[in-house]
Amino acid sequence: MATERESAVGGCTMLRIPEVIQKKRDGGELSQQELEALVLGGLRGEVPDYQVAAWLMAVYFRGMTPRETVTLTTILQHSGEQVHLPPLGKPTLDKHSTGGVGDKTSLVVVPLLAACGVAVPKMSGRGLGFTGGTVDKLESIPGFRTDFSAVEMAHLVQQVGACLVGQSPELVPADKYLYALRDVTATVDCIPLIASSVMSKKLAGGAEHLLLDVKVGSGAFMTHLPDALELARTLVQIGEMAGRRTLALVTDMSQPLGEAVGNALEVAEAIAVLQRRAGAASARFEVLCIELAAHALLLAGLETDLYQARLRVRKRLEEGAAWQTFRQLVQAQGGDVRTVDDPSLLPQARVRLPICIPQTGYIHAVDARGVGLLAVRLGAGRARKEDAIDHAVGIRILRHVGDHVEPDLPVAEVHAQDDTLAAEVAAELQECFLVGEGAPRFQPLVYAVVPESNQFGG
Amino acid sequence: MATERESAVGGCTMLRIPEVIQKKRDGGELSQQELEALVLGGLRGEVPDYQVAAWLMAVYFRGMTPRETVTLTTILQHSGEQVHLPPLGKPTLDKHSTGGVGDKTSLVVVPLLAACGVAVPKMSGRGLGFTGGTVDKLESIPGFRTDFSAVEMAHLVQQVGACLVGQSPELVPADKYLYALRDVTATVDCIPLIASSVMSKKLAGGAEHLLLDVKVGSGAFMTHLPDALELARTLVQIGEMAGRRTLALVTDMSQPLGEAVGNALEVAEAIAVLQRRAGAASARFEVLCIELAAHALLLAGLETDLYQARLRVRKRLEEGAAWQTFRQLVQAQGGDVRTVDDPSLLPQARVRLPICIPQTGYIHAVDARGVGLLAVRLGAGRARKEDAIDHAVGIRILRHVGDHVEPDLPVAEVHAQDDTLAAEVAAELQECFLVGEGAPRFQPLVYAVVPESNQFGG
Repeated sequence: MATERESAVGGCTMLRIPEVIQKKRDGGELSQQELEALVLGGLRGEVPDYQVAAWLMAVYFRGMTPRETVTLTTILQHSGEQVHLPPLGKPTLDKHSTGGVGDKTSLVVVPLLAACGVAVPKMSGRGLGFTGGTVDKLESIPGFRTDFSAVEMAHLVQQVGACLVGQSPELVPADKYLYALRDVTATVDCIPLIASSVMSKKLAGGAEHLLLDVKVGSGAFMTHLPDALELARTLVQIGEMAGRRTLALVTDMSQPLGEAVGNALEVAEAIAVLQRRAGAASARFEVLCIELAAHALLLAGLETDLYQARLRVRKRLEEGAAWQTFRQLVQAQGGDVRTVDDPSLLPQARVRLPICIPQTGYIHAVDARGVGLLAVRLGAGRARKEDAIDHAVGIRILRHVGDHVEPDLPVAEVHAQDDTLAAEVAAELQECFLVGEGAPRFQPLVYAVVPESNQFGG
Repeated sequence: MATERESAVGGCTMLRIPEVIQKKRDGGELSQQELEALVLGGLRGEVPDYQVAAWLMAVYFRGMTPRETVTLTTILQHSGEQVHLPPLGKPTLDKHSTGGVGDKTSLVVVPLLAACGVAVPKMSGRGLGFTGGTVDKLESIPGFRTDFSAVEMAHLVQQVGACLVGQSPELVPADKYLYALRDVTATVDCIPLIASSVMSKKLAGGAEHLLLDVKVGSGAFMTHLPDALELARTLVQIGEMAGRRTLALVTDMSQPLGEAVGNALEVAEAIAVLQRRAGAASARFEVLCIELAAHALLLAGLETDLYQARLRVRKRLEEGAAWQTFRQLVQAQGGDVRTVDDPSLLPQARVRLPICIPQTGYIHAVDARGVGLLAVRLGAGRARKEDAIDHAVGIRILRHVGDHVEPDLPVAEVHAQDDTLAAEVAAELQECFLVGEGAPRFQPLVYAVVPESNQFGG
């Protein structure tokens, strides 16, 4: 605890931090100087964490104005290193998902866009809780490296047209500081704080265009559509105010996306889509990849019509161009190409246990969060940041909402290292499936595109 | 910052502090175990300050239930030493004021009650901001000691029937911890937190009965009557739930109370009241002392009728019994009795500057906060905890709301050590007086007695 009654930072102009906190507490709008004092002061240890924590909780209750949110984002963005891409002669685009269960879209969309002529300098994170992370998934591939510097990253994009790397530790240190504090003070689920955190990383990443996939449903951070829409609008507003063309799709995460939940299993599914041999259980996943990529082409100005954009994307996928780009990307990032050519060489779990449901009817729901948490229990994800993960384990969802089921037809498969755990998870996995007699209502895949008025003519 | 994702305290049952914060953030009621984890965990350094700060800000927005407020109060109460009074053969009562400008009531009420047969083990604080503190005032008397242990304090009460001491440093350490954190995180002005802080000290003080003077107006912490009433009700509720008979008066602090604002000046005014030679400018102050003492006699069960209680109190004052008790108290606490027998021996300021207002009419307002802040500027109070004070300086208010003024009739007097500062303060002091042509509306002195239904038949 500070012994001084006031903490003063901000150069010549002395700010009284308690007064800054009080301003936000009482619903006021903080200036750039005040936000810098709190966030950079906190990062440097000049302002104690308890004052930053009090401000965060006040923001939770009072929100932030659009101007404050943009200001906070740019403060976070400029708090560390930034990626500067060399002139590439083609548009650059970054893609971000707010995270879901079985969300391996980046593994397909990034090489697919590169194959369509968009440079994609993509930085990803690790998984936490019931959602997975692209970096964890990629590390299923033996030798695959994700720790590249900003300069190496620019070089990879020049060479392959895309990269799939981890976030440089020098990027947005103020965001890391703030997130760690939010995590332990119950101030994570606050839309302006989420939006500024996401966008600070994307802005520091250096791409001209930003495509955002905001997930909604039990397997996402946002479980209600109005919240997801608000987040999407806030993200787009920040991007546009910061001078980047930004588009967000709000997409369904009420059931797991596609077949695989678990790291190597998800890589194998992405490869199956890229190699044009994916089964029916991957259909919804493949459609989402195409939708995201098509919107990205509009955003990047390579197409002006959504229908034409879909055709172009589908063609590049069917020709195998996306697959070839993925292969090059794996090779450029040190991965063993044999394991992607033949995914049976990826890590495999010892036990495979199929799950049936003793009912005849139609699947009405598959609880995405439930499936995600069971995958964590198998070892595919982390309950805590410091946990190790097992790349081989996970769950395959073979039947989705709307599919017919019969007592002897497996609806899922548990991949585990241990028979007892496999049996426990299998029993709980059955509970994630809701089966009814009639066919269920159609569940949309894309709920909304933000900005709503489709300026790209699609 | 903690590197662990969760802080766990509370013995065998592990509490996740972020979940406890979230519960309050979402409007839930915390259990005793959860409140202990936060407050005692914070005090012991087992829970980091930033988590306690986030909880405090959540309490600011969500409030606390009566049960939570009482639970927090008893946790604070039991966090340190407690005063245990020996059997005295008479009721014991503690009195507390939420603080105001010129509020020297304890100096009169405490010896007055002792002279009426109520034992008063009174602990007081120091002043901060525009309000003064009883301990500072008493230290104007040469030799007067306020640093007594709990045992010595009980001995003083046996000997004199009352004491006027500072708060023992071993008392309510958790309240000191929490207050210091509230002070730097903009979470001071929150009724359940104020109430639990006040009541924890009073409960640890050991008296059976508690009389509270909740001030309202520009010179008080609460400037609006509904807030003051809510605080009064919360204080009484805590006292009653903790098994102490508790009564609160909500009293006016829109103008300075009585004549003197400043330490030795206030002691001199209190002595004038006790010696029955106070002037008209002290009338309202004297009436309040009698009202408080009369209600205290009802509360302590020594009278059943408010009218009779007032008569008894007035008689003890007029007989000089209260003055004799005050004299004994000063002697018992090491003070130089000659200086109270002859208050002209108390510290005197070098400069005395009378203030006139170039208008004829009636005083409609005297801004209590303005006067309090000017007294601080003269050196009578502290802008920061670590500031030193000058016991001699201050302001005398010679005319109050409703009094007639003429251009040559002084309305106030500045007591300063320095001519320049005296002139500056004098100019600003004029601005604190609002003069109109007609007589102003009557300003009540006591707005409310809580509990409202006067169970004492007064």
